[in-house]
Amino acid sequence: MIIVLRPNSTPEQIDHVIERIVELGLKPHLSRGEHRTIIGVIGDENKLQAEPLQAIPGVEQVLPILKPFKLASREFNKSDTVVRIRKVRIGGGALGMIAGPCAVESAAILDEIAGHVKAAGANVLRGGAFKPRTSPYSFQGLGEQGLKILRDIGDKHDMPVVTEVMDPRQIPLVDRYADMFQIGARNMQNFDLLKEVGQTRKPVLLKRGMSATVKDMLMSAEYILAEGNPNLVLCERGVRSFEDSTRNMLDMSAVPNVKGMSHLPIIVDPSHATGRPDLIPPMACAAVAAGADGVHIEVHSCPEKAMSDGPQALLPKQYAELMDRIRRLAEVVGKTLV
Amino acid sequence: MIIVLRPNSTPEQIDHVIERIVELGLKPHLSRGEHRTIIGVIGDENKLQAEPLQAIPGVEQVLPILKPFKLASREFNKSDTVVRIRKVRIGGGALGMIAGPCAVESAAILDEIAGHVKAAGANVLRGGAFKPRTSPYSFQGLGEQGLKILRDIGDKHDMPVVTEVMDPRQIPLVDRYADMFQIGARNMQNFDLLKEVGQTRKPVLLKRGMSATVKDMLMSAEYILAEGNPNLVLCERGVRSFEDSTRNMLDMSAVPNVKGMSHLPIIVDPSHATGRPDLIPPMACAAVAAGADGVHIEVHSCPEKAMSDGPQALLPKQYAELMDRIRRLAEVVGKTLV
Amino acid sequence: MIIVLRPNSTPEQIDHVIERIVELGLKPHLSRGEHRTIIGVIGDENKLQAEPLQAIPGVEQVLPILKPFKLASREFNKSDTVVRIRKVRIGGGALGMIAGPCAVESAAILDEIAGHVKAAGANVLRGGAFKPRTSPYSFQGLGEQGLKILRDIGDKHDMPVVTEVMDPRQIPLVDRYADMFQIGARNMQNFDLLKEVGQTRKPVLLKRGMSATVKDMLMSAEYILAEGNPNLVLCERGVRSFEDSTRNMLDMSAVPNVKGMSHLPIIVDPSHATGRPDLIPPMACAAVAAGADGVHIEVHSCPEKAMSDGPQALLPKQYAELMDRIRRLAEVVGKTLV
Amino acid sequence: MIIVLRPNSTPEQIDHVIERIVELGLKPHLSRGEHRTIIGVIGDENKLQAEPLQAIPGVEQVLPILKPFKLASREFNKSDTVVRIRKVRIGGGALGMIAGPCAVESAAILDEIAGHVKAAGANVLRGGAFKPRTSPYSFQGLGEQGLKILRDIGDKHDMPVVTEVMDPRQIPLVDRYADMFQIGARNMQNFDLLKEVGQTRKPVLLKRGMSATVKDMLMSAEYILAEGNPNLVLCERGVRSFEDSTRNMLDMSAVPNVKGMSHLPIIVDPSHATGRPDLIPPMACAAVAAGADGVHIEVHSCPEKAMSDGPQALLPKQYAELMDRIRRLAEVVGKTLV
Repeated sequence: MIIVLRPNSTPEQIDHVIERIVELGLKPHLSRGEHRTIIGVIGDENKLQAEPLQAIPGVEQVLPILKPFKLASREFNKSDTVVRIRKVRIGGGALGMIAGPCAVESAAILDEIAGHVKAAGANVLRGGAFKPRTSPYSFQGLGEQGLKILRDIGDKHDMPVVTEVMDPRQIPLVDRYADMFQIGARNMQNFDLLKEVGQTRKPVLLKRGMSATVKDMLMSAEYILAEGNPNLVLCERGVRSFEDSTRNMLDMSAVPNVKGMSHLPIIVDPSHATGRPDLIPPMACAAVAAGADGVHIEVHSCPEKAMSDGPQALLPKQYAELMDRIRRLAEVVGKTLV
Repeated sequence: MIIVLRPNSTPEQIDHVIERIVELGLKPHLSRGEHRTIIGVIGDENKLQAEPLQAIPGVEQVLPILKPFKLASREFNKSDTVVRIRKVRIGGGALGMIAGPCAVESAAILDEIAGHVKAAGANVLRGGAFKPRTSPYSFQGLGEQGLKILRDIGDKHDMPVVTEVMDPRQIPLVDRYADMFQIGARNMQNFDLLKEVGQTRKPVLLKRGMSATVKDMLMSAEYILAEGNPNLVLCERGVRSFEDSTRNMLDMSAVPNVKGMSHLPIIVDPSHATGRPDLIPPMACAAVAAGADGVHIEVHSCPEKAMSDGPQALLPKQYAELMDRIRRLAEVVGKTLV
Repeated sequence: MIIVLRPNSTPEQIDHVIERIVELGLKPHLSRGEHRTIIGVIGDENKLQAEPLQAIPGVEQVLPILKPFKLASREFNKSDTVVRIRKVRIGGGALGMIAGPCAVESAAILDEIAGHVKAAGANVLRGGAFKPRTSPYSFQGLGEQGLKILRDIGDKHDMPVVTEVMDPRQIPLVDRYADMFQIGARNMQNFDLLKEVGQTRKPVLLKRGMSATVKDMLMSAEYILAEGNPNLVLCERGVRSFEDSTRNMLDMSAVPNVKGMSHLPIIVDPSHATGRPDLIPPMACAAVAAGADGVHIEVHSCPEKAMSDGPQALLPKQYAELMDRIRRLAEVVGKTLV
Repeated sequence: MIIVLRPNSTPEQIDHVIERIVELGLKPHLSRGEHRTIIGVIGDENKLQAEPLQAIPGVEQVLPILKPFKLASREFNKSDTVVRIRKVRIGGGALGMIAGPCAVESAAILDEIAGHVKAAGANVLRGGAFKPRTSPYSFQGLGEQGLKILRDIGDKHDMPVVTEVMDPRQIPLVDRYADMFQIGARNMQNFDLLKEVGQTRKPVLLKRGMSATVKDMLMSAEYILAEGNPNLVLCERGVRSFEDSTRNMLDMSAVPNVKGMSHLPIIVDPSHATGRPDLIPPMACAAVAAGADGVHIEVHSCPEKAMSDGPQALLPKQYAELMDRIRRLAEVVGKTLV
């Protein structure tokens, strides 16, 4: 950590900063420049990150040098983490192709969609039973009945299933039915929820918050990893921006950016990122070319009657065409899709 | 609601859209322009908002006309809502001056701070017992012990107290000690939490999410109001932006913007918005001049030893000077500070 | 255009709005809903866009239906525009691979770089002679001497050359040496500059502004097209965002988004978008997979001694490896690279 | 400047970085920590800022310590700069109240507006003769005729006048008629324009770019100051954001933020920042309470017939009411309005 002092800081202020550092069992290293005095601190930076050094009179800036996450960092684990959801692997060259409707609406509709996406090459089935909706007057999901349908249809088509958990109290229930927990964008910093999925050993799909930096996402990952659950897949799903012709702005560079900083797999959700079916296939292709470990796509056989987020779903036929192209791109970038 | 059709939409597609509208018991109103055909829909727009009309082939845009919130709207309640927290009123010309440390650290420190802020004119005491922290390795709050201290010190100084609730399971516990629930920015769309504080009748301080629009905030307010709790105060606390010299960007125009759209009181938190003590006083003054119903400020008697967010706290002396200026500004804009 | 009236608008106000519409030679179309009265306007929407209808008392919202650009729109030209820069084609399936150093520094360095990028498959050489720099104390480019070097080295390697023009007065000079004008992000709304390159017939590379929406970019394109120059290539180069680990946020969805709205070719510049050499190759691959008509990459044989933006340049060897992968991806998405 | 090395940097790489620093005549200062080695550099940081040290293998981060602007900095000039536009002073406690229509439309309309705003207390008259418009089909201003009208009406009402200059070639013409140049948000990084107004000695009103940070604005100020023109007033006018109910987001904290970093006066333009007449008065009041050196407001006697930006103008009567309140607020914050 580097502490930069104000140009007019007094010797007493400098001494006071040094004392605080020594009190914490760390070693200060003073450099006096022409315009500024700076203090480098040698030792465990984490001790200092908890300290409000910035509030000491005479201090201008405190610059951390180390990343604030450890278990999620590439330095902690040089090789890529591979997450297994039953027989499916995500990461380390294996693509997780997650597909299904936004919400579980009925067994018949889910069965039809699952048949289509499985045939096209999807390897994980998704469907929401608890839906976070901006409006209290919108459809909020079927709850446990939706979980049962999801489990049954997943089993029928031999696909593991992922579904969102919104409240720590839902964890035991969702745990009973699903193969993977999804933490939605709005809950990326719901720390109790993170800790409690971290206490299970079930795989977690953690979506990036709407205004989270890549580092914020890795800090949320750290909450889960710190509780002992290593089975974590990240998901880029777009962030808020001024662009008004897409729902969110897909930050595609987050894929290689996360891969440089962390060993965790990262997939891309072009459905929520763009909110527009015409943009989903090119963004899914771009994600695979950028090195993503999978793609998460909403598919519905009748988007105009979908009970949630219909306008951002692909038709089964469009999904099948997309999967053909993805298979060929995956080959070029050295990924496998089983 | 206005449905705009694509330039090349076929008569069959137009008929199909009209059929869907009629099926929902609404009345379509067709206008054929030179370049586009548009359909106005007369009737309860809410029925339509739940429908994915955008997904119908031939539809280019769906433009809602009505605001998606009802109980929070100015049209629902023409006069300003006044929220009472024990003897303190917020709204309708009365300023809520909330002050205190970021986190409750000990009875002695809180007592000292409470004495100072009360003397300076604060009328509500704040202090966190459950702290949402970006890092799992940071101080997470004293929990129930913190709540007890907060209650005792509040009583000693005859100030009502507000504290954050992060998880629906904490509601009964927090309810026992606090006079007002705070919902933090990270939980603005934690819908289960919103519903459950909505089921109490205790006042709620709802903070704007880091990337929430003003309408998003009012939709979250609607969740609480729809459960029957009308005692709601909103709080602007800055949003994420590209500006890198402040922690967030304080959207000051949210104050009159909310007042135009809603009857709910809104206060401003310049501490979290700026993250810089030098910017807190001018932003607090600006908030009052802009018509805010109060200001939420972190005060600590030794910011450099604060266990959470010390660098954004004012010293008691700075707070007292600020309150002097605020009193004079309040007079100019016709607000009272009791 | 749709005019939405306030809930409490008076009959006089409604009549006044209707009069204004009729005065403009347009036809109003009134719909009275339960909660709102709306007026659809039939006729040339452009007449209305220039009018401040929003300012009329009783008007709540004015919603344009048509896009504000014409010549740039896909409706104006159904087939993809192909821009020719000497023998090179960009658009319609042909990839423009623009490469070279940020700034022209010397004939020797440029010659070396040009030899490398040409061998790797680049078909247009870039290099700045006039450099827009955030600081007045940074290197501002070699001016005419730089243009001469660029021309000579381009000729030697049989590559057309592109370079930035920052000021309308530089147009005749740059026109003499370059095969394509570049308009930088900071000048995307320098309207005099746009008009004057529009008055030439030389190809233009127009970069997206740092906070321009896709529609803003197409409006700037309209300025050039409206002056009669159809030889226009757009360039996505990242926008400002809150993410602090990359220089800008590459909005990859702008590629298919522009292609849906416009017939103009669009390329991607991952160098400026990310500012990080480790992210350039995956983003270049993603751009091609997303359907971009080319990629613009900075290459320098000694980034650490480059006089401008060295840290975002690839080494010639890295560029050659990237081009190998791009060739294989281009085949999958049906693009040719000559 | 601090150079942070990668955890696995080799001794050769470290030596190479040190050599480069010594070559530049500076003094490196090595600190080896547990996890990272860092090098502090003593000497003129500007030499280093031009160097792409980030591109050297083994370097992880380069952290500048000094601000990149000098002449604009508070350290360069401890006391507030006061800019004089004829008899009017802006800065140092004196408020510049700039008002007038967006565009000069006719002598009669401008005369009427000028009479009203002068009576209400405005001390500088504004009006555009060259208008930057997003669409090539919108009204582009009256040009020299508009300048003449502005001069005449300014003289008639004894008010100095400010008007926008968009192109360096317009400087001599605008110089002849106006008392202050305005550089618009879209031209904040039009560096040739900045340099050339910097070569005059006429006051300049520099508006913040739509996605410029406060530091970017101060760097643009530096361009003007570096050419020798010290008569510079900055203007906060809102930045681009995701909020969709206001035209831009007014960054009110930029006012005290600039005042901390710079000696230059800064005013606020709530008209462009919000785009909504209902938000202009509270934001103007907030600006004065925050310490701004003035307010820039568009006033039009018939906004619905204004040829440019009518919907964001106040009526003369609204402006007069606002000025009454501003006068009382100014007194509280110790500003004078002559």
